[in-house]
Amino acid sequence: MVSEDEFIKTFLKPLAEKTEGSLGLLDDAAILPRTPGKDIIISKDILHADQHFYKEDDPANIAHKALATNLSDIAAKGATPICFMLGIAFPKAPDEQWLKGFIKGLEAISSQYSCHLLGGDTTGTKGPLSLSITIFGEVDAGKMVKRSGAKPGDHLYLSGSVGDAALGFLLKSNELGIKPSDLRFEPDVNNWPLNDEQQTELLESYLRPTPRVELAEALKNHASAAMDVSDGLMTDLPKLCAASACGADVELARIPFSEPAKIVFAAQKAEQDELRNLCLCWGDDYEILSAISPENAENFETEAGLQGIIVQKIGNFTAPGQGIRLLDETGKPHQHKPLNFSHF
Amino acid sequence: MVSEDEFIKTFLKPLAEKTEGSLGLLDDAAILPRTPGKDIIISKDILHADQHFYKEDDPANIAHKALATNLSDIAAKGATPICFMLGIAFPKAPDEQWLKGFIKGLEAISSQYSCHLLGGDTTGTKGPLSLSITIFGEVDAGKMVKRSGAKPGDHLYLSGSVGDAALGFLLKSNELGIKPSDLRFEPDVNNWPLNDEQQTELLESYLRPTPRVELAEALKNHASAAMDVSDGLMTDLPKLCAASACGADVELARIPFSEPAKIVFAAQKAEQDELRNLCLCWGDDYEILSAISPENAENFETEAGLQGIIVQKIGNFTAPGQGIRLLDETGKPHQHKPLNFSHF
Repeated sequence: MVSEDEFIKTFLKPLAEKTEGSLGLLDDAAILPRTPGKDIIISKDILHADQHFYKEDDPANIAHKALATNLSDIAAKGATPICFMLGIAFPKAPDEQWLKGFIKGLEAISSQYSCHLLGGDTTGTKGPLSLSITIFGEVDAGKMVKRSGAKPGDHLYLSGSVGDAALGFLLKSNELGIKPSDLRFEPDVNNWPLNDEQQTELLESYLRPTPRVELAEALKNHASAAMDVSDGLMTDLPKLCAASACGADVELARIPFSEPAKIVFAAQKAEQDELRNLCLCWGDDYEILSAISPENAENFETEAGLQGIIVQKIGNFTAPGQGIRLLDETGKPHQHKPLNFSHF
Repeated sequence: MVSEDEFIKTFLKPLAEKTEGSLGLLDDAAILPRTPGKDIIISKDILHADQHFYKEDDPANIAHKALATNLSDIAAKGATPICFMLGIAFPKAPDEQWLKGFIKGLEAISSQYSCHLLGGDTTGTKGPLSLSITIFGEVDAGKMVKRSGAKPGDHLYLSGSVGDAALGFLLKSNELGIKPSDLRFEPDVNNWPLNDEQQTELLESYLRPTPRVELAEALKNHASAAMDVSDGLMTDLPKLCAASACGADVELARIPFSEPAKIVFAAQKAEQDELRNLCLCWGDDYEILSAISPENAENFETEAGLQGIIVQKIGNFTAPGQGIRLLDETGKPHQHKPLNFSHF
């Protein structure tokens, strides 16, 4: 068992050594680094055990995911991450092995993206483990990519693919013997014909999402609006459209799904529609949805490609009265049954 | 029952109208306001139900306390609060009446101190209600009052009085029929000879602490070090001394206790030592402890007084080898049994 003092001094302090303003985690407060000519962009994501991750998950993965979800928000705004504040509440004094894993995971992702610990708060809780991160990024003054800038006629772009995290979650739940609530179908997980590599691909998408930090520059240069997909493509797109006062047409055939996802769809043909719907509405994708004007599209694709990120045009922004439409192969609106996702 | 969307749009958005960078809470991220020549000071405090407050508490008080504890950190650094990020996790969809009370309390304290909502995150949790606030303040560049600046010979000052929150907590626990753990004595709460006004004074200290926001300027002008007393005077002073590499002598006779506290001490004479010890070590005081050089002392007292805050010299900083000593009326070290407080 590790005490609060020891946790701060032995485990957290080394992570704060690269941020001068952290004052060695010895103070009540921290000083935010400033770069002249830059705006400071802030985002906050809270994660609770058995709500956003399973308490049985590898602690390194829990730490990775907590920072990754926040890095994703900063990237979607065209900004570069600089540092973060960590709040952590433990249900009981944490075990040293667990903490070592957690810190190792946090250290790895914070080093990878040069986004270091600035400060925070630690406490106990009568509830499950909970994490609260406030992240800071910077972007040239006035250049943050907002949700509100999309215009009718802009192309709708998506990075990577969606749905892998939802399927990974089903795999993980099955492994733990937990039956997810709110599903409208029975996922036949044990009969999905996936090899080990494909299973790992889906699990990793859920457990260790990759934030699209390298896409920020191309977004800043070319996007009129953007947001990250944390609650599902068809849940988040309406939010982008509402903020921009636009409608959008999404072409189902253009939505990128991974190879393992396609295998799962084919294996459960009768439930294919529900499975695909889950992949479009469940979330945890941390891909980036953006509005790119037609004249910027080629440069956006090129710059993203140079960072090793595939971006795919999946539709268009339309006039506000048009609503959000998911079009099938024939161009007809597809019967889409949203999951009506709410965190509470 | 209020949905997440409705909570954000109807309840939270009005609180964010005064911070331009909140973008109407419509975006993934917010833009921090900047003032040239100022440093941005950040602090974070997390509060969980049944750990930092009782879930039965008036929701307006819960909101007040959550922001007050953060405002206290900013004040102790000599900084002016500017805005805050709110993370809130609900155990179930919140009831409208409860939310109205919560928002009313939050609105009142954020207006009082011109510290408005900038953004945040809302979610559900399988645990108790939890709040996580990251607060931002500003101070002239390089002028933040750190914990680390105290020097031997500096006077040790305390604002207000300590222990009222601890006694208020005992009153509240008694009212709820909850027996606090970790006490080394039986508080005879039902026989404390307090009138209604005195009871209210103690309860309010615990439920609705007053952050010493108005003391910030005097601290910035005169303090060589400061921190707020959140974990108890004799728990927090060693942290200030450690950061400053100093010892300290505290004169027990000079520690200010309120009239109701003195009445309680007198009523439980046999347990007076344990009661006083609790008042010195339990916390939630949100008073400010500071190191003031002898030549600044008079001006510090005057400037604090002009803000309506009484500050009292309660001891001196000493050479590091001296340790932290609590001296009785005869100048002899008092047998002080710390409560060894740790949040987990």
